[in-house]
Amino acid sequence: METKQALVLLYNGVVVTMDQECHVIRDGAVAISGDRIKAIGPTSQIFADFSTVADESIDLNGFVNTHVHTSQQLGKGIADDVDLMTWLHKRIWPYESHMTEEDSFLSTLLCGIELIRSGTTCFAEAGGQHVPGMVKAVEQLGIRACLTQSTMDCGDGLPPNWKYTTDECIQSQKELYDKYNNTADGRIRIWFGLRQIMNATDQLLLKTRDIAQELNTGIHMHIAEIPYENELVVSRKGVNHGTVTYLEKIGLLRSNLLAAHSVWLNDAEIGYFASGGVKVSHCPASAMRLLGFAPIKEYLEAGVCVSLGTDGAPCNNRMSMVDEMYLASLINKGREMYISGATNPTVVPAETVLKMATINGAKTVLWDNEIGSLEVDKKADVIIVNPFTWSMVPLHDSISNLVYCMRTENIESVICNGKWVMKDRKIVNLNEEEIVQLAMKQARNLLERAGVNLPNRMKFV
Amino acid sequence: METKQALVLLYNGVVVTMDQECHVIRDGAVAISGDRIKAIGPTSQIFADFSTVADESIDLNGFVNTHVHTSQQLGKGIADDVDLMTWLHKRIWPYESHMTEEDSFLSTLLCGIELIRSGTTCFAEAGGQHVPGMVKAVEQLGIRACLTQSTMDCGDGLPPNWKYTTDECIQSQKELYDKYNNTADGRIRIWFGLRQIMNATDQLLLKTRDIAQELNTGIHMHIAEIPYENELVVSRKGVNHGTVTYLEKIGLLRSNLLAAHSVWLNDAEIGYFASGGVKVSHCPASAMRLLGFAPIKEYLEAGVCVSLGTDGAPCNNRMSMVDEMYLASLINKGREMYISGATNPTVVPAETVLKMATINGAKTVLWDNEIGSLEVDKKADVIIVNPFTWSMVPLHDSISNLVYCMRTENIESVICNGKWVMKDRKIVNLNEEEIVQLAMKQARNLLERAGVNLPNRMKFV
Repeated sequence: METKQALVLLYNGVVVTMDQECHVIRDGAVAISGDRIKAIGPTSQIFADFSTVADESIDLNGFVNTHVHTSQQLGKGIADDVDLMTWLHKRIWPYESHMTEEDSFLSTLLCGIELIRSGTTCFAEAGGQHVPGMVKAVEQLGIRACLTQSTMDCGDGLPPNWKYTTDECIQSQKELYDKYNNTADGRIRIWFGLRQIMNATDQLLLKTRDIAQELNTGIHMHIAEIPYENELVVSRKGVNHGTVTYLEKIGLLRSNLLAAHSVWLNDAEIGYFASGGVKVSHCPASAMRLLGFAPIKEYLEAGVCVSLGTDGAPCNNRMSMVDEMYLASLINKGREMYISGATNPTVVPAETVLKMATINGAKTVLWDNEIGSLEVDKKADVIIVNPFTWSMVPLHDSISNLVYCMRTENIESVICNGKWVMKDRKIVNLNEEEIVQLAMKQARNLLERAGVNLPNRMKFV
Repeated sequence: METKQALVLLYNGVVVTMDQECHVIRDGAVAISGDRIKAIGPTSQIFADFSTVADESIDLNGFVNTHVHTSQQLGKGIADDVDLMTWLHKRIWPYESHMTEEDSFLSTLLCGIELIRSGTTCFAEAGGQHVPGMVKAVEQLGIRACLTQSTMDCGDGLPPNWKYTTDECIQSQKELYDKYNNTADGRIRIWFGLRQIMNATDQLLLKTRDIAQELNTGIHMHIAEIPYENELVVSRKGVNHGTVTYLEKIGLLRSNLLAAHSVWLNDAEIGYFASGGVKVSHCPASAMRLLGFAPIKEYLEAGVCVSLGTDGAPCNNRMSMVDEMYLASLINKGREMYISGATNPTVVPAETVLKMATINGAKTVLWDNEIGSLEVDKKADVIIVNPFTWSMVPLHDSISNLVYCMRTENIESVICNGKWVMKDRKIVNLNEEEIVQLAMKQARNLLERAGVNLPNRMKFV
């Protein structure tokens, strides 16, 4: 790699484009001018004056993490191995409701370090309390984000400082949109949020649907997470199955809906997703740990766009698309046990997982006209992988190796919007050491304020 | 850390002992003299002359990987996303049957690098063709191993150079035992192998049982991997369930039996394992990918000793106990879906997983009198973790963080038998760069010799 004036040249790499035909260029080169890709092709063709050596790296599009709670990063480890009610009422709600904007800023910075180190150049925030804190962090980190406020206008047992009217919910999001959408060189977009159906009145659902349409932006919502959610919808809303059937009835299933998790759908509902163009964020780790097996094979067969998300730190602990790709492949093979009584190692192969993590992610966040694959005139979001280490050699199958063997250690550099955000394993735009130290201190204070106490798992002396 | 003559002092660390009462010493110290632990306690107590600062690391016993095919490391990536018959007959058997002793040596070295980098100080070889090649590699790597020859005296469709009589099988293992058991400063032990029941005559099963008893060593066997195995046993051996029922009948279920995988057992068979003292090697990744959900919760409830294994590279791709711990917790929570219709996030908690990876591993390889926990007079197999990085902070729950958040990057140094095998992230006893280069070249040659061709997953140009 070298920089010549405004032109960044990546060369002598295996370039995994993820374009329409999934071209992979052996000994390829990518020329970046400003924030965009100017040329892609064989190294020899693009730089006739360079003598070609062997492939020295794998270059591919940055990953898109389509469901991550950046605010929960400071809460990593506060709710492991506990039941769902303890998780929510005794750990996460006290933690999140005691958070300040400054905490959210720091939490997003810390999360951003993990995202960058695991090759993520764009993420969709799942919904937090302090969008301005997130904005400030994303501006600094240098990556892309679709930010969303956690929005609830009803529901049982919410912390007292979380009670808002429908209009307040819409108004505050509208203000965030006006203030922050398309800022930070166009890296930040503001979406509308719906926490989940039991925290949204019909009015909120419909107003959100309409304003997102009017502003031409997306809606991020947790959908069909657990069977109990569907049962409540059936009993309270008088539909015959669950959340998705109800959302179909009121016209919310459109192509700008990002449906997180979406584990508990019947065949008809999968059909509604497909015909509505709804995008699914599949979160393998939190599915295994908390929610159940999502019907990914069925989504793919029905033509639904499926992408990958890590969920928040207290659901998973690893905010790494690198690990989530590995899990996505393993877990969907194992899920066949549950469906058909036998595993099927051919289900959800590596190339499908790589699409989920890149181009499908871009489609999910409604940004595939500019990101998600390495193509001329697209924005330059590129990660540079060194595959010649113990974790990936002997490299018999480079595509499956990216999904199964790659670790965060293999990701050496990350470019977003044409600019380095990690170079030679050093995070460019912030002092990582300082953030790590600050996070430890501030997270302990927050936990103390929230009154969360964790039992010891072993006999500490 | 510093070295004073023959004494190695690790201090100012959180020492996770994994002893009988799972003591964790905050700001603890470990003194190593020769190959053994000489003292453990608070830093201030052990080194009264040191002024105590904050915890600077987490020190814990090295992991024990109880099922790994070191010979398959050069075949990483040759059999991803294919059905079981393709996996075995078109990829793995051609690959393994064309392997030389020199290939096995190199494969074990490459695998050993991954084992060390992921904190493993002892492993149980699942069975390969060239034990002398493995011995040579383990001698050099500096870790501990229970090595086993892959042993088959019958079975359909085997490669022609793999046909041996029962006596040849026993004799060659006996010779290996005589030559190599208890060599390399006592780091190498030789076990007896049984590939799986369909590749073993009754004679081989019984002779193996008796000679292992006589020599006071262990037997490593793949057991109850897929339902078809049980069906064949029922039809051919006239028992009412499967492999385990048959092994019980012929008296093989003893405390020196290491049962790999063991996915398909009924309640009675789990009881046989418990009463016989059989040890289970649970391999979460290959279970999800190929075999199905093992009844780990039920094993634990019945008092069966369960440890962790990575299986071989073409089943998993990650030979890392770090990832296997994370998976073990996720997968067994998700398995509850399959058993009871809902996930259960409280099942197989972090402290249980950490036991599986350490002390239970030591019990499984019949070595817990000397390794598996940090205790005075035990052998010094210690890993030193730096938890103060993006992947593990803010460290609210250090034990669950070790299981869920730790990555290989966090493991900075590894000591085995009192000697550094990795120090400050540098592998001590070999030139890692050289092995990686050699492995790429030699693995390609091997694949060519074996006639294995992999289809391209994308459009390479």
